[in-house]
Amino acid sequence: MTEIKSKEIRFASAPEGMPNDSNFELAEVTIPEPKDGEFVVKNLWMSVDPYMRGRMTDRKSYIGGFVVGNALEGGAIGKVVQSNNSNFPEGTYVSSMLGWREYFLSNGDMMSPLEVHDGVPLQAYLGVMGMPGLTAYAGLFKIADLKEGENVFVSAASGAVGATVAQIAKLKGCYVVGSAGSDEKCKWLTDECGVDAVINYKSTDNLTATVAEKLPNGIDVYFENVGGDHLVAALESMNFFGRIALCGMISQYNATVMPEGPGNLINAVARSLRLEGFVVSNHFDQLGPFLNDMSGWIKDGKMQWKETIVEGLENAPQAFFNLFSGDNFGKMLVKLADD
Amino acid sequence: MTEIKSKEIRFASAPEGMPNDSNFELAEVTIPEPKDGEFVVKNLWMSVDPYMRGRMTDRKSYIGGFVVGNALEGGAIGKVVQSNNSNFPEGTYVSSMLGWREYFLSNGDMMSPLEVHDGVPLQAYLGVMGMPGLTAYAGLFKIADLKEGENVFVSAASGAVGATVAQIAKLKGCYVVGSAGSDEKCKWLTDECGVDAVINYKSTDNLTATVAEKLPNGIDVYFENVGGDHLVAALESMNFFGRIALCGMISQYNATVMPEGPGNLINAVARSLRLEGFVVSNHFDQLGPFLNDMSGWIKDGKMQWKETIVEGLENAPQAFFNLFSGDNFGKMLVKLADD
Repeated sequence: MTEIKSKEIRFASAPEGMPNDSNFELAEVTIPEPKDGEFVVKNLWMSVDPYMRGRMTDRKSYIGGFVVGNALEGGAIGKVVQSNNSNFPEGTYVSSMLGWREYFLSNGDMMSPLEVHDGVPLQAYLGVMGMPGLTAYAGLFKIADLKEGENVFVSAASGAVGATVAQIAKLKGCYVVGSAGSDEKCKWLTDECGVDAVINYKSTDNLTATVAEKLPNGIDVYFENVGGDHLVAALESMNFFGRIALCGMISQYNATVMPEGPGNLINAVARSLRLEGFVVSNHFDQLGPFLNDMSGWIKDGKMQWKETIVEGLENAPQAFFNLFSGDNFGKMLVKLADD
Repeated sequence: MTEIKSKEIRFASAPEGMPNDSNFELAEVTIPEPKDGEFVVKNLWMSVDPYMRGRMTDRKSYIGGFVVGNALEGGAIGKVVQSNNSNFPEGTYVSSMLGWREYFLSNGDMMSPLEVHDGVPLQAYLGVMGMPGLTAYAGLFKIADLKEGENVFVSAASGAVGATVAQIAKLKGCYVVGSAGSDEKCKWLTDECGVDAVINYKSTDNLTATVAEKLPNGIDVYFENVGGDHLVAALESMNFFGRIALCGMISQYNATVMPEGPGNLINAVARSLRLEGFVVSNHFDQLGPFLNDMSGWIKDGKMQWKETIVEGLENAPQAFFNLFSGDNFGKMLVKLADD
């Protein structure tokens, strides 16, 4: 077998505030030849996600921080190109957390072949059929305890998680309002995703008043991806016994001082609200039902999604930065190689 | 029967910020003679509670606001003094929400005779054996899902609710830290209630650091009565899958502008925390087990409590104001008449 050189992006230093190029380093390694039981995966797609910013700080969190000097990690879809492992023959697709690199060697631990469903593109396993999709599914059903016909508000609604939340809630007969950061995103949410009403928060003077106006019957479930003003606005419109699934707070990930918290959190007392943070890795028990439901919805044309694709590993840091400017539309992906 | 004159305190106007005398009005009414099925109750004790401040604003809340011009309402323990209702013969003790008045007429709707347990003083049914006690019990077991041996932090820990929380948690084998506003209260918590460690928040420079120091193994359950800095401090020390029972936020009840919220609420995402507001009225299903457990603990000398008693209906507003200065120690009660 020929020696494989693999480029990888390493964690060079912890960012203060908004990450920049100095926090990343491009390096090249040689992949050892696979021994018995081992195989080499060539990554085709990798994901950049907002949660990765949390792994770049020392905040006590659900997942260890990135180690300076090591390659970064994250969701990736690859294909086995050399194999001495009969469970992962050449050509097998693999979903892993070993993104940010072109190739890797594995012995199969903590990994399973990826079953690609009919009509589902490979990269969707990093989005609507992957962690973001499962995040939406588990957040709605396990954390927010969504019931048919409820009033749902979702922030970052055109994003990988948000758009899935919005459409699952619609499929459950809910009244759904989404917020997003451009008219184009809002139009897609209404025209393609069937969302009942939208809010372009960038052109809204008073988000609290606008949320109240767009959700005249209040909010039963708020799916929180943004934090800040969005949470304040949602808290002001929450109905009694409302649930807030705290999935993320992207507006605060790059904060260098403690940001302002929701001054109206007291509404949670007065209205018996539940706010619950969660991470998808604690909900893998939902993976089976999720894949079953989601592949059916996709097959039936009931699930839409958007992708923003950046090409080449060396551009992955920029793709990551773009998550925080809101310039991406839908799932942000880095294409590393053709299949 | 002789005509009964009854003084009552009416809601004169909605307070802005801290309530004052101008928001209350003393009036006198004549109690009609009881017709068939009716009876007259003479109130002996009434309760003033922080939650009443919420009923003086128009915030959307679990219980209707007080109506200007009407007598205020609140927990009271009284005794039947005239009766044409065989279920409530003269001498029957009654627990009602018709406090802030000396007498009232009732037909028994939404009311039941009070069963007084051996060795339990009458006014305890407004405290440790009443709503505050049930609040502690339901909050710990139903909202915070308390487990044996967990690490518990409770604010306003010498108060009617807080002291009950602290002692129930100790009875469940938990490590319990309480915060209170004086050395005297802190001493009582350690010496009499068996709390493991205490924080006098008034003499603490950095509450977050002090909470972290006193709870070296983190917080599994935080019972929130105060809000503000206390919530920030707790959030900083919460363990993964920690629960915060949002019972009250007394530091914010008199706020005239939106107070600062907890800027580190993002920890709820990173650590899968649950924050849940609740009100005792939704947990009356726990009343039976609560009274059973609590009367047993009291009988066995395992439950301590403090009372601050003000005499006379006309002093009830001042008793209410004192709740917010923290000058009271334990349950704040107004004694209206001797038994």
